[in-house]
Amino acid sequence: MISIALLGFGCVGSGTAEVLTENKKIIEERLGCEYQIKYILDLREFPDSPFGKLIVHDFNTILNDSEVTVVAEMMGGSHPAYDFTRACLEAGKSVITSNKEVVAKFGVELGEIAAKHGARYLFEASVGGGIPLIRPMTVDLASNKIKKINGILNGTTNYIITSMRDSGVTFEDALREAQKMGYAEANPEADVEGIDAARKAVILGAVATGRLLSPESIHREGVTKITLSDVALARALGYEIKLIGYVEVIDGKLLCFVSPMAVPAANPLSRVDDVFNGVLINADMVGEVMFYGPGAGKLPTASAVVADIVDVIAKRSTDPTPLGWVSASENDVVDFASFFCRRMVITKTESDGCACADGVYAYLSETMTEQEADAMKAEDSSIITMYRML
Amino acid sequence: MISIALLGFGCVGSGTAEVLTENKKIIEERLGCEYQIKYILDLREFPDSPFGKLIVHDFNTILNDSEVTVVAEMMGGSHPAYDFTRACLEAGKSVITSNKEVVAKFGVELGEIAAKHGARYLFEASVGGGIPLIRPMTVDLASNKIKKINGILNGTTNYIITSMRDSGVTFEDALREAQKMGYAEANPEADVEGIDAARKAVILGAVATGRLLSPESIHREGVTKITLSDVALARALGYEIKLIGYVEVIDGKLLCFVSPMAVPAANPLSRVDDVFNGVLINADMVGEVMFYGPGAGKLPTASAVVADIVDVIAKRSTDPTPLGWVSASENDVVDFASFFCRRMVITKTESDGCACADGVYAYLSETMTEQEADAMKAEDSSIITMYRML
Repeated sequence: MISIALLGFGCVGSGTAEVLTENKKIIEERLGCEYQIKYILDLREFPDSPFGKLIVHDFNTILNDSEVTVVAEMMGGSHPAYDFTRACLEAGKSVITSNKEVVAKFGVELGEIAAKHGARYLFEASVGGGIPLIRPMTVDLASNKIKKINGILNGTTNYIITSMRDSGVTFEDALREAQKMGYAEANPEADVEGIDAARKAVILGAVATGRLLSPESIHREGVTKITLSDVALARALGYEIKLIGYVEVIDGKLLCFVSPMAVPAANPLSRVDDVFNGVLINADMVGEVMFYGPGAGKLPTASAVVADIVDVIAKRSTDPTPLGWVSASENDVVDFASFFCRRMVITKTESDGCACADGVYAYLSETMTEQEADAMKAEDSSIITMYRML
Repeated sequence: MISIALLGFGCVGSGTAEVLTENKKIIEERLGCEYQIKYILDLREFPDSPFGKLIVHDFNTILNDSEVTVVAEMMGGSHPAYDFTRACLEAGKSVITSNKEVVAKFGVELGEIAAKHGARYLFEASVGGGIPLIRPMTVDLASNKIKKINGILNGTTNYIITSMRDSGVTFEDALREAQKMGYAEANPEADVEGIDAARKAVILGAVATGRLLSPESIHREGVTKITLSDVALARALGYEIKLIGYVEVIDGKLLCFVSPMAVPAANPLSRVDDVFNGVLINADMVGEVMFYGPGAGKLPTASAVVADIVDVIAKRSTDPTPLGWVSASENDVVDFASFFCRRMVITKTESDGCACADGVYAYLSETMTEQEADAMKAEDSSIITMYRML
């Protein structure tokens, strides 16, 4: 009998309890052994929940119980999630997490601690919610060098942009509706400013290269400046505006940023709408593969957490080498200023071949670097904004 | 040092040799051990290939060499591929295959033999080419009950249908072009009659339920009867015609067929074009996820073969229980006649709300069973054909 503890009984934590209970029979059949949820750590009481009796308030109850060998951390935030994770790993307990903030900030250190204490630290649910992604990248693409990852990594902002396009509502109204639907939090900053997407992008970069960038160090733009006319102009030119987490490996170095981009209709990411996520991976042998599905939500994210729990219990090593990340140094990074791509230029001036919406115009530029784009904007005051093109 | 033998040096076989050689360094790093390709079995000689010296013509050279513990079968066809696979497994050698025909016909028996002799039998490359699919279904969705699988499983026919839509060429011309491009074989029967898709569909059904249907037993329609006006009419109504491998689990029983279907624009499969494959999986906990990528081709398929080779060498068990399939009995099957869905009705008679193309008309029916659809066609002689709707 394997004893599991859950840290946090919010959305993902309660979903994980539900998945482990609802599908207990088939999961135990696949594992060939039995398990129980022994404790659930939360500050609150849940007297009406069937899991109410498992609630404990003192983390040490879990840490000091040697029967508990598998811990799933779904608390969110850096602290005390990081501290509890670290303590569990040091005690030789394997930890599964859905917490992208902790993985993005402390993944290198926690991976080292896990390896040192013979424990495992898995985080499939931290990127792409329920979409199988981290394990397929490490196991199924094991014979590939990953060259590029372009992902719609944040469901909240994708819902907002899709609403703006399909219902013609402004960013502010779309955000309010997303909050009403429970897709966006009361304080939406982490989503709309691209902070969540940046955490996920650096995790994907580390999975691809073993080098973890600080999420604060990468170029990051959110969706707050996207206007209805931008969305309409992009469409008129055959593009969709999407918030893209961009990772590219160039001569062994990492280029990583988060930005709204104009995605051509032929790119499968252009059709990833609403709260769905999609991650397009370009690797040297397989070419292009895309993983698509629910990037958040209670049961989908719990599905990924439980996949990692099953993996740990079955003692499978998903990646023949352990996490083994190192922090990316300056030498591992491509300077964002040198990134080059075409631009969708939004301007007040009409010219041949321009699309028009709401009295503003758009055309597609030639390829240029960030520096060149900045210079162009500085020289031409009729340019309102530019979108990078995928 | 692990010794690997390849059976077959055609498209996938030579691709596998290339992947194992080109990315040897990173694969060995991930494995933590070294490997070599010791033999390549083929009837032909390849004096100009860098792998020419590894060619052997006698299968017994491989079978009797106890150093060879991993064999990748990429010969195609049932025999001698099945016989060689069986002999290898009985000798305790693990076998990896891209051969959907052998897996669909003999998967139950070969799985039993593998389990009995402590060997593994893996077939990631048999469905979806380079797309990670079998392992994500068994490992990443381990906590889910799979409810439905809808897949575009054959790149050749998808290329043909896409050409008909985008270039307005007839089925015959699109097929000729696919043959010229190397996407279709001189004898295209297995592709255009849906035989290849049926083999893949029963494999996916078995991965989902442990019950393998005979590919000959399922309802199967190919793409040879699709006309240009059918494709145009579907589009006018907001649908795309796609050849769908359909698997559904209803009260624990399997419904499985291959048929052209009208796929609504909102379904991500409607945008899987050209030679690409896409597989949409509906499972109880995660909801809907899609896997998309190159469903065939030398290096993509080889990427999946090598992922299985890595898995075997790393001695990871991808699925806690071994293959463990049984042949589906009559009690395990839902009668196709009871399948119900809406139909796109192509007719010679105009009526309100009909779309029109080339003098024929189309409208969308209410939900009906196969029996009801057959009765409707028998009664109304103006009906030319009907498409099932996804």
